[in-house]
Amino acid sequence: MSNLWHVSTTEYGGTKESIMRRGNLYQIANGAMGYRGTLDEHGPEECVGITLAGIWDRVGSAWREPVNAPNGAFTRVSIDGRVLGVDRVRAHRQTLHFAHAIFERETTFAVRGTEVVLRSERFLSAAVPQLGVVRFSVCASRAVDVVLRTGIDGNIWDLNGPHLPALTAEKRGAVLATHGRTHELGLMVAVAEAIGHDFAEEAHEVVDGRNLRVLRFRAEPGRTYTCHKYFAVSTDHDRFGAPALDAAIAVAERARAAGYEACRTAHEAEWARRWQRCDVVIEGDDLAQHGLRYSILQLLMVAPVAGSATSIPARALSGQVYKGAIFWDTEMFMFPFFLHTYPEKAVELLRYRIRTLDGARRKARTEGAGYRGAFYAWESQDTGDDACAYFNIGDPFTGRDLRTHFRDKQVHISGDVAIALWTHFRHTGDDSLLLEGGAEVILECARFYASYAYFKADKGRYEILDVIGPDEYHERVNNNAFTNMVAKETFAIAQAVGDHLRRRHPAAWRALVRRLRIARELPELRKIGRLLYVPSPDPQTGVIEQFDGYFRLREATVAELKSRMVHPNEYLGAGQGLAVPTQVIKQADVVMMLNLFKDRFDTRTKEANWKYYEPRTEHGSSLSACAYAMVATEFGDLDFAYRYFLKTALIDLEAKYKVYVGTIFMGGSHPAANGGAWMTAIFGFAGVSADERGLAIRPRLPSGWRSLRFHLAYRGDAFAVAITPRAIRVESPVTNRRDHRLVLAGKTVVCRRGATVEVRSGARPKVRRRRAPARAAAGSAG
Amino acid sequence: MSNLWHVSTTEYGGTKESIMRRGNLYQIANGAMGYRGTLDEHGPEECVGITLAGIWDRVGSAWREPVNAPNGAFTRVSIDGRVLGVDRVRAHRQTLHFAHAIFERETTFAVRGTEVVLRSERFLSAAVPQLGVVRFSVCASRAVDVVLRTGIDGNIWDLNGPHLPALTAEKRGAVLATHGRTHELGLMVAVAEAIGHDFAEEAHEVVDGRNLRVLRFRAEPGRTYTCHKYFAVSTDHDRFGAPALDAAIAVAERARAAGYEACRTAHEAEWARRWQRCDVVIEGDDLAQHGLRYSILQLLMVAPVAGSATSIPARALSGQVYKGAIFWDTEMFMFPFFLHTYPEKAVELLRYRIRTLDGARRKARTEGAGYRGAFYAWESQDTGDDACAYFNIGDPFTGRDLRTHFRDKQVHISGDVAIALWTHFRHTGDDSLLLEGGAEVILECARFYASYAYFKADKGRYEILDVIGPDEYHERVNNNAFTNMVAKETFAIAQAVGDHLRRRHPAAWRALVRRLRIARELPELRKIGRLLYVPSPDPQTGVIEQFDGYFRLREATVAELKSRMVHPNEYLGAGQGLAVPTQVIKQADVVMMLNLFKDRFDTRTKEANWKYYEPRTEHGSSLSACAYAMVATEFGDLDFAYRYFLKTALIDLEAKYKVYVGTIFMGGSHPAANGGAWMTAIFGFAGVSADERGLAIRPRLPSGWRSLRFHLAYRGDAFAVAITPRAIRVESPVTNRRDHRLVLAGKTVVCRRGATVEVRSGARPKVRRRRAPARAAAGSAG
Repeated sequence: MSNLWHVSTTEYGGTKESIMRRGNLYQIANGAMGYRGTLDEHGPEECVGITLAGIWDRVGSAWREPVNAPNGAFTRVSIDGRVLGVDRVRAHRQTLHFAHAIFERETTFAVRGTEVVLRSERFLSAAVPQLGVVRFSVCASRAVDVVLRTGIDGNIWDLNGPHLPALTAEKRGAVLATHGRTHELGLMVAVAEAIGHDFAEEAHEVVDGRNLRVLRFRAEPGRTYTCHKYFAVSTDHDRFGAPALDAAIAVAERARAAGYEACRTAHEAEWARRWQRCDVVIEGDDLAQHGLRYSILQLLMVAPVAGSATSIPARALSGQVYKGAIFWDTEMFMFPFFLHTYPEKAVELLRYRIRTLDGARRKARTEGAGYRGAFYAWESQDTGDDACAYFNIGDPFTGRDLRTHFRDKQVHISGDVAIALWTHFRHTGDDSLLLEGGAEVILECARFYASYAYFKADKGRYEILDVIGPDEYHERVNNNAFTNMVAKETFAIAQAVGDHLRRRHPAAWRALVRRLRIARELPELRKIGRLLYVPSPDPQTGVIEQFDGYFRLREATVAELKSRMVHPNEYLGAGQGLAVPTQVIKQADVVMMLNLFKDRFDTRTKEANWKYYEPRTEHGSSLSACAYAMVATEFGDLDFAYRYFLKTALIDLEAKYKVYVGTIFMGGSHPAANGGAWMTAIFGFAGVSADERGLAIRPRLPSGWRSLRFHLAYRGDAFAVAITPRAIRVESPVTNRRDHRLVLAGKTVVCRRGATVEVRSGARPKVRRRRAPARAAAGSAG
Repeated sequence: MSNLWHVSTTEYGGTKESIMRRGNLYQIANGAMGYRGTLDEHGPEECVGITLAGIWDRVGSAWREPVNAPNGAFTRVSIDGRVLGVDRVRAHRQTLHFAHAIFERETTFAVRGTEVVLRSERFLSAAVPQLGVVRFSVCASRAVDVVLRTGIDGNIWDLNGPHLPALTAEKRGAVLATHGRTHELGLMVAVAEAIGHDFAEEAHEVVDGRNLRVLRFRAEPGRTYTCHKYFAVSTDHDRFGAPALDAAIAVAERARAAGYEACRTAHEAEWARRWQRCDVVIEGDDLAQHGLRYSILQLLMVAPVAGSATSIPARALSGQVYKGAIFWDTEMFMFPFFLHTYPEKAVELLRYRIRTLDGARRKARTEGAGYRGAFYAWESQDTGDDACAYFNIGDPFTGRDLRTHFRDKQVHISGDVAIALWTHFRHTGDDSLLLEGGAEVILECARFYASYAYFKADKGRYEILDVIGPDEYHERVNNNAFTNMVAKETFAIAQAVGDHLRRRHPAAWRALVRRLRIARELPELRKIGRLLYVPSPDPQTGVIEQFDGYFRLREATVAELKSRMVHPNEYLGAGQGLAVPTQVIKQADVVMMLNLFKDRFDTRTKEANWKYYEPRTEHGSSLSACAYAMVATEFGDLDFAYRYFLKTALIDLEAKYKVYVGTIFMGGSHPAANGGAWMTAIFGFAGVSADERGLAIRPRLPSGWRSLRFHLAYRGDAFAVAITPRAIRVESPVTNRRDHRLVLAGKTVVCRRGATVEVRSGARPKVRRRRAPARAAAGSAG
């Protein structure tokens, strides 16, 4: 398998930080849980983490965070009474295989002249969400006494635990089971482990929180002894009907009965389907290919389990950082990837927001002066109530926490959710999600903005006051361009969803309006939407002021600010930070808006704003680079776009990100950047855009990219796209349900199902039929 | 003279801080200038300061501050070649006489067995604003050679100078003159000095910036040698026509020609008139009497010169602290004293605001999003432009300055000005000031609030958002009760002033409306005034929420906050201070409102709010105690009221105030507290209130006060009031122009001019005629 389909290292041990970074980089996940890239023999010291999706717990006044499960993949080996550890390592290699998200390791230890090779491979089943599988083997160069201690390690690494304070470790028949209840809600978390092996006597012991099988045998020289471990994690959150413990035992037993090969085959088959839909192939640029594929792997690994209505936290399932909370990152940076490749997963993300609508309503009622509608949580967990603290950045000067307004003032989050819901409908043409609660969310978000907005009588306009935009260094600003635009769009979407339902589902619409008691407010929503002010480009310069008064702030460079820092961990925002009185911004804000609403602004405006804001941007968030990269593709600065694409695509592979901001540990994976890398490739370089009118592709490939191939999901159908510097080719499979309007490099064609359309630069579109039952013909040029 | 008419000390020298405090305590002033309580021989090291009213200067990027003049009262003595200094002091006494604001010192030095006594007295003429006079004498116990170096010391103590960078020192005829121009505007500041003496040869020398006469003589034992110094300070700001230098020389020469006694007689006559109008006599409480009289002295000393249209800075003329700027202190805490005792001075204070209206307009246009109307400066100097910095409190942690919003968000200042203007009219019945620009100020202030306010559609009300109220620890709050009430009142006043002028001065009104182009806005102002929200008392508790969300802040005590301080100079506000997330407030806010609008709230509400807010108040401002004291008198907590009255009345005498907040030096006198002491005595304990309907007195004397006697100015007339625990007696002089309605302890009487009205507890009002041409008769009981 080519090096573009894996990542590997020979490093074993090292500093805490390097172990931590490998833990992030080599993690595997299956949507239900993540497993950090640690080794079989590792424990809490190495930050082993089996982080569960959808279940959170809080201990005392510490942060509520995701629950980590006991480690059912634990195995530690002794040779002739000596435990194999870092001091005996002679060679090591660990590999993450992108093709099927399998973690593999091979380590050679030396024990008094005997070479002992441990090999294992581990996957979290893409077919069975609760299941993890390990194949573990030992081979010694000389005859030795081997003891394998394998089972479930109940010593859990937590940031703010313990979340499972009283674990029970037991053996039920041939199955080990370790289970406990969460501290706060008493939810059961159960891990069961079954094993397959034929070379050893087995005893059971529970020592130091470890629920272990002790396999003792005499190893013959050169012979490989292999066991297969099947561990299952089930929680009361899974809602599969059965009690969590029974469910875990059943899954583990069923997997053992099916055997390793069957488990792996099912897993690999699912991964093959995923890659078939989601891979992006770059010819001519291995670095970009590698980074982008790793990014896609990350997104596919953490995509929610079907039917779970969960979403993807900002650090995915790589641990408990950021409280396992879901931010706007999901809708703005990850959702587009799924929408365009794997819409079933996009639906889960949206269902999560529908499911947590009541939490958003509670937040609206209780935050600030009290609002109506839905004010989505800045940091959302299981209920949709906000996990974000009012004081959440450590101040190195006073040792106290700084008041920030992320929670109470970053109001664009509600509009981000509404926009994602509506984009889903425009892209898929499927309104079922709107009927399932999506329309309700949209109306409630618009209602929230209506109750947040103020009317400025002398200017005859509504304004959105006292907010934080994406640039979090400037808090409590008025008329942030991004926020106002998002709010205005939310009113427009509320209007559109009403028009749609009124026409297509009048009874549902009437019921919804009745339930929300919103009939009398609808004209008001329309009026506010119409009169809501959005800062517009300056007529001379084309630059949009980020918020009222931004242009009057002091000019400064990021370098100058940094040179004035007194403490390396001092925060640049929060009212008194160095960036606050200056034009230095943390991340894309106006440029983020220009990217999100890219069809509303001309290229000149994009370029003017990009050139104004880019030198003022710290890119202190992993979300920033891709927004600048995408906008740069639009006015042709492909060099910049490529650099920032690469920065985004390699963020987890290179792992140069900040591990601490203030005193807050922030390590972990970056799924939003992963999504940003994909967006930059597809929306930026391939120039893909899609709405209810059709699919458009206007490529601007980086130099050196010989071709770019990918698939797109659109309105229930799919396309294979291949772009070269000279041509765009789109295949519409025979399985497509209808014909589609395409705009390729500005030329409009109708692409009939089963047809392949090709546009070469300068030439007329060429249409080729292919195994197609229906006719396919070119439309007119654009 | 009783000890209730002076303050004195025997301390000489000491620490810098004790010299500084004596400099404050023993200062003299005459409205045009102040002279700190330093000694003749002192220089910049002892913080000699002759601070000028109405002239400011800025050097580089330092604060613009008042200009200090060269010291024309300088005298240093040598005996047998030895300079008399602190090391030779054997006895010392310095005294400030309240009766005529004369500073006196007598110091005995020992020089090799010879006792030398220096005596001097110094006053700044209350009759001639530019003039200072010193009588200086030397007496030795044995024959010695004396050298007096006396003249003008050009070594000026400045906080942020030098403001007169190139001084010229010369002698013109018999007059010394030292003059220079301010750094920023090139305004001339000239000091001239003339002298009268008959015992010495005189030479002239200019050494080390000192422009000196050298008087050498042989002193006979026991004989006193006295000289009289007349120094004059004139500036280009005085606008007396003549060039500043000529004016100063002329004043000094005229004074010398008139002689010491004549100067002193004129000065004392003016002071006698002042005390006749303004003294408050407390029988039975010497401590209170002393503190209150000192407070009144302070106010009378710094009252603006007639026709100057200047106002009183927050630290009066005691130095350059607070940039010599005029704050709301003047209108809210000093203005009432003058209005009720010396209305001509109240008029100057208001004229200052009229004169600086254009500065307030400029501030409105350029601050924040840009407003209409008049946004008065938080710190106002010569032009009315704001001297307040956006970053104006030093942060001991970072060494940087904290962003505060005093300047841009403390919008109640405009309403404070409008209220003072309107109160003046209601109290005096004189509308000439309204016609001179007062009405214009009021309309422009209302216009400002109209452009600052936002309409909340769903609540059907206007709100005032994003402000700082008097409690400066909570910045950027919405719907601060004090601010909203003041703004609402401003709209009402704008309406009332319009009604008045329309009726009485229709042509002036039409001209004003035309000049301001405000005709079309007037209905809008009425509407906003009507719909402007003001937080009202909670129906259950009666407590008014200080601002939106205040009740949700954490409960805390001042002591608890202070115990959490990491640095002694850390500021409790500015967004990240310890008080910000708590209910701890810096100073009276809601209670300040209840006091300012005392006729709008019932006693129950006052008590409920007082009891809620007092324990939460740090009283971190000298303005706080008196507001709580006054409200406490209303619901009968006289013990508290008395304690806080005393705290206020003794603030400068006891000099326990903070000298530093953060890194900012804040020493100096406290004229607002001086005014607060007077208000507590007269409005609080005497229960005086006055408006266009009449004068009411409802006493509640502290226990132990046998009587309280004072004068009141009202509608161009005057009254002598004497209150005992059992009676209120009001004398209306025959010079009064009309009869007045009085409400004494709830009983309404008509007091005819020349009559004395007495109300005894339980008895019916008694009216006695006295040397009166007209009849005087009692009205009906109330």
